Order: sequence, then structure tokens, then C-alpha cells
Amino acid sequence: MPNPTAAMLVIGDEILSGRTRDSNLHYLARALTDHGIDLREARVVADDAAAITGALRSLSGRHDHVFTSGGIGPTHDDITADCVAAAFEVPIDVREDARALLADHYAQRGTELNEARLRMARIPEGAGLIENPVSIAPGFTLRNVHVMAGVPSIFEAMLASLLPRLTGGAPLLSQTLPVLRGEGDIAGPLGALAARHPELSFGSYPFVSNGVHGSNVVVRGQDAAAVNAAMSELCALFPGAVEGAQGGAAPGGAMK
Amino acid sequence: MPNPTAAMLVIGDEILSGRTRDSNLHYLARALTDHGIDLREARVVADDAAAITGALRSLSGRHDHVFTSGGIGPTHDDITADCVAAAFEVPIDVREDARALLADHYAQRGTELNEARLRMARIPEGAGLIENPVSIAPGFTLRNVHVMAGVPSIFEAMLASLLPRLTGGAPLLSQTLPVLRGEGDIAGPLGALAARHPELSFGSYPFVSNGVHGSNVVVRGQDAAAVNAAMSELCALFPGAVEGAQGGAAPGGAMK
Repeated sequence: MPNPTAAMLVIGDEILSGRTRDSNLHYLARALTDHGIDLREARVVADDAAAITGALRSLSGRHDHVFTSGGIGPTHDDITADCVAAAFEVPIDVREDARALLADHYAQRGTELNEARLRMARIPEGAGLIENPVSIAPGFTLRNVHVMAGVPSIFEAMLASLLPRLTGGAPLLSQTLPVLRGEGDIAGPLGALAARHPELSFGSYPFVSNGVHGSNVVVRGQDAAAVNAAMSELCALFPGAVEGAQGGAAPGGAMK
Repeated sequence: MPNPTAAMLVIGDEILSGRTRDSNLHYLARALTDHGIDLREARVVADDAAAITGALRSLSGRHDHVFTSGGIGPTHDDITADCVAAAFEVPIDVREDARALLADHYAQRGTELNEARLRMARIPEGAGLIENPVSIAPGFTLRNVHVMAGVPSIFEAMLASLLPRLTGGAPLLSQTLPVLRGEGDIAGPLGALAARHPELSFGSYPFVSNGVHGSNVVVRGQDAAAVNAAMSELCALFPGAVEGAQGGAAPGGAMK
């Protein structure tokens, strides 16, 4: 059975202006690979309602899951929740359980739960909350869209709350063979190997180390025996060009 | 008059699996912001022809410029050039000037220009080449799509070749001097040289060749006499550190 598929939607002017470098895509990509969910595409859009709702509709229709980051804070340009509601044509308002979480949190700190902070309790009708152990204001899941914060520490904490609830498939296994030859020498035999193993994916990532050109050849797949078999063929194709090859297909964790 | 708009398309399984963290989006975002081009959206897709051509058509129709990274190497999964040709329905084949660049480059290194490497000279009909001072294999511009490498050092060097041309006006001339010294040695004198020639731009793109650290220093400008003068100064600054320096400022064609 194929793994569930996913897309990510990163929301925020600051990413597109270069002011901030996004880290959530890379974090999510690794987490989903370990969990057996295939991240198929990602988009970055500005804090613009038409852009956000358009991307949400497009991505949610094509994938099992959509993960968003950004735009759920208290300021006027945090419009993600409203855009999710609009994309699915459901009402949105302050929700009592979310309001209670915020009221308790700010009361403990002697901070006023003002109108701006209350915006963070606006949740589209029918959504489930995603716990935020860092700063309390929750994310939410509406249908197949999981709405999370843009601040990396909060995004990561929300994902830790959410991910165990999602059904994953077989984790993607991978093995890497460093070959101390230029990519142009590797390409021919590698392409032929890839053609013989359509169930696996093969990548080649060039490097230069101490003046020597090489490539990390990566074999990925869900079947450990198939990955191992391809790895043996790969070692035979490039004998003696190997240093520090990893033995044995390991689960996703080996992809680091 | 509003700024031109742009989108970025990042191509590569390795980004979506979490194996590699993309850095080109952030780099491009900053560069475009400095240049007065508005980056409106970005997408990341896998090495999948339908995903790439679909994104190219969608983005190129909505923005003044589309910048791509990834998928232009010699291996079987490098399919970006073919997808660009398909998206615009133009033929693609090995192009003579691109082939000559590669033939010269590999001949100097005693490396065979085999079938895999020749793939990097496949350029869609009607495209203009984008210079690659790092590893020679060129990027290209077809209509409003600028196709560049995924390796960050090469992406950044290609962008440095491309971006000044997007303002229009007189054609940009460029010369490259390979200097067999570390970039840290080059930086001081090069900075002083650049300060004496505010009408030109100077770039430095480090490489390691046979264990020796070096840099391709690139001089760019619109005035051939000024580029030639700066090149003479550069040769005097780094005597004996020069191999295969190009003499004489050439028009656009020199921007390889």
C-alpha cells in the first residue's frame, strides 16, 4: 500500500523578502520521512489572502495531508486561520476552549488577554486543536489541513503533538555510498541501475573533498531487501571507489 | 511603475525527503530584494516531469521571471532542461556552444566528455546561456524562465552572472581569471580593486582542483575598456597564479 502523501504551505512575507530563512520545511521533511508520509511538494506564499486560499484549495485536493506554517499570531497580517475557513467555506469565530487556554495562560502571567491576543482563539468551525506547549495559543486541524505556527520552536512542538495521531506508512529506507568519482563518470551505470529497479529511487549528490571529486549515491525505498540488493549492485559497479559505505538498510533515521 | 515579479521553483527529491536543506531560496530572496524584483511565491517539487512542467507553466504565466534551481546535472534524474522544453513546447538538443564549453573544460582536465556529461549541453531551442564560472556547464534562460544549478555555490555564481542582465540596457561584459590561491588571500586586494572600479562588479567563486584551493575571479561591466583595464590590474595583483586567463573583453558571448 502506498504511503500517504503530503504538501507543505509556508506562509509569510519575511521568507520571500529574504529577511528570514525558513527552517520548518526541512524539519517537516525529515519528520515525515521518518513517519512514512511522502512529502510531495511545498509552496511558499506571502501574507496575501488570495494566494493562501488558492494554495490551500489546490494542495488539499491533491494530497492526504497539508501542513502549514506561519500566520497564526496576534497581528493584523496573521490571516491564515481566516483563509483556511474561507478555503473550506466554514464559519470562524473565537472558540471557548481555545479562549480558556489563552485566558488561563495570560492570567498566570498578569498579562491582559486583549483583542489582538484573542484573535489567536479564532478557530474555524469543525476543527480540532493542536496543542502548543511552548506558547499555548493552539494550532488546529480542519479536514486534511494542519495549521501550525511559523516560529520554529513552536512549529516543532506542535508537530510533535500532531504527528503521532497521523497514520504513517512504511518509513523510507535509505543507504548512501560515497563514490570517489565525478558525477559524469557515475551517471551512465547509475542510470542503468535505476532503470533495473523502478521500485527504488536513486539520487547522486556531488561533493569535492580534499580536491577529489566524488558523489554520494543514495538509494531509497520501502523494501529493505530491495534496497540492500541495489546497494550490492552499486558496490560492484564502483569497486574500490568506496569509503565508509554504510552496511545494511536502516530505517529513516539513517537518512541524516 | 511597480517592480517586476518573480517566482522560484526548487527541483529535487533530496529537498522533500529532508536529505538536503535548501539554501537557494533564501539566497535568491535576498538578491532579488536588493535588485528590486518582487519574489511573490516559491515552490518545491520532486524530480518528476509532470510536477516540474505543471509548476513551470503555472508560474511562468503569472510572473515576470521564474528562477529554477536543481536538476541540470549529468545523471538520469536531471530532467529540468527537458521539462522546460516540454513546458514551452520547443525542441531540445545538444547545442554547439554549450558542447564546446564542456569539451574545452574536460579536455583541460584529461576527462572524457562522455554521453552523461554531454547531457549538460542539452539546451532548449531559443534559450540564452547563463555563465557558470564554477563548473562550466551552463544554465540557460528560455523566455522568462532562468534555469540554474542546485549546488549552492554554482547557483549563486550563475545568479551573479544573470541578475545584472535583468535590468536591461547595454549588454554586460565579463572576464574570468582563475587564481590558484585561497579566497582568503584574494579577498583583500580584490576588495581594493573593486573599490577603485565602482562601475564594474567583481565576483569570486572558490574551487578546489587537484588539492589546490583557488578562485575564479569574475569581472563584469558594460564598458569593454574598463573590464580590460581591471583585468590587467587583476593579473598584476596575482602574478604567476594565473592559468588559462581569458584575454580581451568579449561581448555577451564571453559570459560563459
